Amino acid sequence: MSSLKNKFYEIIFEADTKAGKTFDIILSIVILVSVLLVMLESVQHINARYNRFLKIAEWFITIIFTIEYIIRIIIVKKAWRYITSFYGIIDLMAVIPTYLSLVFIGGQSLVVIRILRLLRVFRILKLSRYSAAGRSLAKALWSSRAKIGVFLFFVFMLVVIIGTIMYLIEGEENGFKSIPLSIYWAIVTLTTVGYGDISPSTATGQFLASIVMIMGYAIIAVPTGIVTAEIIGPFKKNNTQVCPECLHSFHDDDAIYCKKCGSEINPEEDN
Amino acid sequence: MSSLKNKFYEIIFEADTKAGKTFDIILSIVILVSVLLVMLESVQHINARYNRFLKIAEWFITIIFTIEYIIRIIIVKKAWRYITSFYGIIDLMAVIPTYLSLVFIGGQSLVVIRILRLLRVFRILKLSRYSAAGRSLAKALWSSRAKIGVFLFFVFMLVVIIGTIMYLIEGEENGFKSIPLSIYWAIVTLTTVGYGDISPSTATGQFLASIVMIMGYAIIAVPTGIVTAEIIGPFKKNNTQVCPECLHSFHDDDAIYCKKCGSEINPEEDN
Amino acid sequence: MSSLKNKFYEIIFEADTKAGKTFDIILSIVILVSVLLVMLESVQHINARYNRFLKIAEWFITIIFTIEYIIRIIIVKKAWRYITSFYGIIDLMAVIPTYLSLVFIGGQSLVVIRILRLLRVFRILKLSRYSAAGRSLAKALWSSRAKIGVFLFFVFMLVVIIGTIMYLIEGEENGFKSIPLSIYWAIVTLTTVGYGDISPSTATGQFLASIVMIMGYAIIAVPTGIVTAEIIGPFKKNNTQVCPECLHSFHDDDAIYCKKCGSEINPEEDN
Amino acid sequence: MSSLKNKFYEIIFEADTKAGKTFDIILSIVILVSVLLVMLESVQHINARYNRFLKIAEWFITIIFTIEYIIRIIIVKKAWRYITSFYGIIDLMAVIPTYLSLVFIGGQSLVVIRILRLLRVFRILKLSRYSAAGRSLAKALWSSRAKIGVFLFFVFMLVVIIGTIMYLIEGEENGFKSIPLSIYWAIVTLTTVGYGDISPSTATGQFLASIVMIMGYAIIAVPTGIVTAEIIGPFKKNNTQVCPECLHSFHDDDAIYCKKCGSEINPEEDN
Repeated sequence: MSSLKNKFYEIIFEADTKAGKTFDIILSIVILVSVLLVMLESVQHINARYNRFLKIAEWFITIIFTIEYIIRIIIVKKAWRYITSFYGIIDLMAVIPTYLSLVFIGGQSLVVIRILRLLRVFRILKLSRYSAAGRSLAKALWSSRAKIGVFLFFVFMLVVIIGTIMYLIEGEENGFKSIPLSIYWAIVTLTTVGYGDISPSTATGQFLASIVMIMGYAIIAVPTGIVTAEIIGPFKKNNTQVCPECLHSFHDDDAIYCKKCGSEINPEEDN
Repeated sequence: MSSLKNKFYEIIFEADTKAGKTFDIILSIVILVSVLLVMLESVQHINARYNRFLKIAEWFITIIFTIEYIIRIIIVKKAWRYITSFYGIIDLMAVIPTYLSLVFIGGQSLVVIRILRLLRVFRILKLSRYSAAGRSLAKALWSSRAKIGVFLFFVFMLVVIIGTIMYLIEGEENGFKSIPLSIYWAIVTLTTVGYGDISPSTATGQFLASIVMIMGYAIIAVPTGIVTAEIIGPFKKNNTQVCPECLHSFHDDDAIYCKKCGSEINPEEDN
Repeated sequence: MSSLKNKFYEIIFEADTKAGKTFDIILSIVILVSVLLVMLESVQHINARYNRFLKIAEWFITIIFTIEYIIRIIIVKKAWRYITSFYGIIDLMAVIPTYLSLVFIGGQSLVVIRILRLLRVFRILKLSRYSAAGRSLAKALWSSRAKIGVFLFFVFMLVVIIGTIMYLIEGEENGFKSIPLSIYWAIVTLTTVGYGDISPSTATGQFLASIVMIMGYAIIAVPTGIVTAEIIGPFKKNNTQVCPECLHSFHDDDAIYCKKCGSEINPEEDN
Repeated sequence: MSSLKNKFYEIIFEADTKAGKTFDIILSIVILVSVLLVMLESVQHINARYNRFLKIAEWFITIIFTIEYIIRIIIVKKAWRYITSFYGIIDLMAVIPTYLSLVFIGGQSLVVIRILRLLRVFRILKLSRYSAAGRSLAKALWSSRAKIGVFLFFVFMLVVIIGTIMYLIEGEENGFKSIPLSIYWAIVTLTTVGYGDISPSTATGQFLASIVMIMGYAIIAVPTGIVTAEIIGPFKKNNTQVCPECLHSFHDDDAIYCKKCGSEINPEEDN
């Protein structure tokens, strides 16, 4: 029995064995298919025609996923730990919407959350390259969170003030119906998205808008600079430290010994 | 008495004591709330319903802020220095609009300036990380002001000329009603905002527009490059040092001998 | 005979001899002209007038290219190898559309594929600078494929989820007619293109949109950072080396001693 | 007489003397004013009112500039050299339009070219910082011309092909009236400008458009990366060279002597 359980565990949770890999690949395909089905269902003329088929397929997949979810809970050693884990929650959220759709119409659209299950592909692909790339990216973003936080904080204050001023300049008759809406416009402009659903029509407004655009144009340089610097990483903080022996500078912050002559160097206090 | 004064000072101006911290946090919340209220007030259907409540709340907060402002002046040692300080001015500007609204309708919208008071959060958070991040960003931007200035100067000349040419090509019948408006269009295009409120309709105009877009697309690389280089920093500000022998500049920060003539050069103090 | 063949080979395939160069230059001009003709043909009022001339010119050029293609096959040593080569396929695709146009109307538009033949200009220009530039760019992009792949994978999941949420928030009455369409909107917004053909009109929708824009604004920093880091290159691919003593990786390319334990490390061959 | 000539020369051509500086500053102001006047003249309701005044002012300034231009020719040593110089040509082009306006209506708009005369402000400001910044920017852009050239060449081929495909997919009924227009759309999209004057309405078209946007979103990373790398400059090509004495690497391409120990190093062949 427990051997069967192990077999299942190997197949469902691991991806080393052939069976496990196959399972994961099939799973990914089913996920993509189900997401595709939901999308098609939302397209009226398609739904009108194939509604019945889509509904059946949708329920079929949901039931499979539900069973899979239950099996996972049964076979896993620490059931609760899995349930509360990132993947555990996603696996659950991947089936709930369909059941919800019995109560709330349109609820089933939320099953697209299933797409998050694809994060498992990384495990399938087992491409250390890709996970490495992912990690280093995450690392770069994470270590630049402070700078980006500050940046966003200023952007926030900026758009609030700009939005208000535009609201006063353009006024309701020109589409700037309220301050929140004007702030929305400010964001649309500062980020250079520029829908054009709202756009200044007074000379003053257009002048201010021009300044905002140029600002947005220059401001975008900031996050880019931050992230780039982080990705290039080591190279931007390591030239204040000098080796006492060979006087070589360009050491990394975490350097304890000189990379040139191997003699110890006194670590600098991090700024 | 003076002890009371000190107590107040500690609470209002400092953020080390528990009381001081609490005060600052409450203050921030009140600021956010008041800003939110002004926004809501500008939304017609909300204002229609809760106008009375919003007005009262607005006045209530303003009076609190006014009292706070007065207290600050009383308890601070150098009253005038505070009044003329950055925060002093903001604190004043945070209350004026409401009083102005008695005279000018809509004036109260300007109280969103209060949001600038949030800059104090940095003091509250006391997160050296964040203030460090802020400083280094400011530093990067500040030290690249010359380059960015030159860049903006050229962008300015560019849009003026492009705008005029487009005005001549497209003309008033195609929405390019005047040169200033055409310059506005040029900025909208060059910054890749592209509202679409004005867009070329003649073949020639669209051809020129295409060139402008490609230019804008390439030009954005410049500020980004500048700021990035500044953030990475140390690696490029190596041209203030000049070799005493061959007068060659562009030496690296860690250069001990001139790379051109091999003669020793006195290291510069890092700026 | 074979001498004649060689002569032809020299002219058509090589670009060292004067004849060969001239041939390639003329070829490029003819290509550009033919592409231009197709474009003009698609412009109604022009086609209405010069249709006859355009058709003739089009067929004339096509026949020339066909003959050239046949000659290439005849004179080249390994005919099949050429036919299946990149340029061989392009050369073929450059003539097919016109013949197809006999069957399918409008098919001839595809002859613009001829423009790909211009890739040969690199061979003509023989500007090692340009090909070098091209290579280094390609190299940078290629070596950052993993990161960019991961990046696009996340962007893909992001737009699917955002699109669905917006579909639920805005709904069909506001132009978000289906999930695919909403995903299209999400891409339009995240990439800061912002056509404005679809744009949120509910407060909630606009709020979410704002977040998406800010995200897109920050996210663009990622590919830029990746590519920039790759172009700057050498400075970040320093983590393949591992210290034999403490197994610390992330050494600089020029590291001789481990910065962690000070023990010597064998330099890696640069990749 | 010649002394008077020298005096004039000093005032008009140089900016070291007080007189010269004052002259240049006044000149800059007059330029800005005249440009402003032309702009205002193009604004209908303003022109309707002040047409007479604007015309007079315009002619007044033009005559002043003409006289200045003539004086410059008289007093300069090598008249012809000045006339054919960059500034000489601009100075001439700054007056011609007004005279042209006698023949062609609207021609006077071109006087905005005068704005180019402002380039002289660099000479006025005499801020070595700014001119240095300008130079280093120009240098960065210039040295990356090859890469940017290649980049634009590919973008060109890309938009031509994309445009054509979209023309076939969407067709005239959806606003993609001709291939050139579709190429225009492709550029508007790829550069993330997105006017929205033309936008795909078929599912296939929107799908392709999405891909184009993502591409444009990723492609923008390339010029940014190029320019950034160029601005950071020296640091991306200088780690193949190693000092024979102290084995220090990280030399610049133009280094002849080791910056660490001053011993000669054999220059590497540039790639």
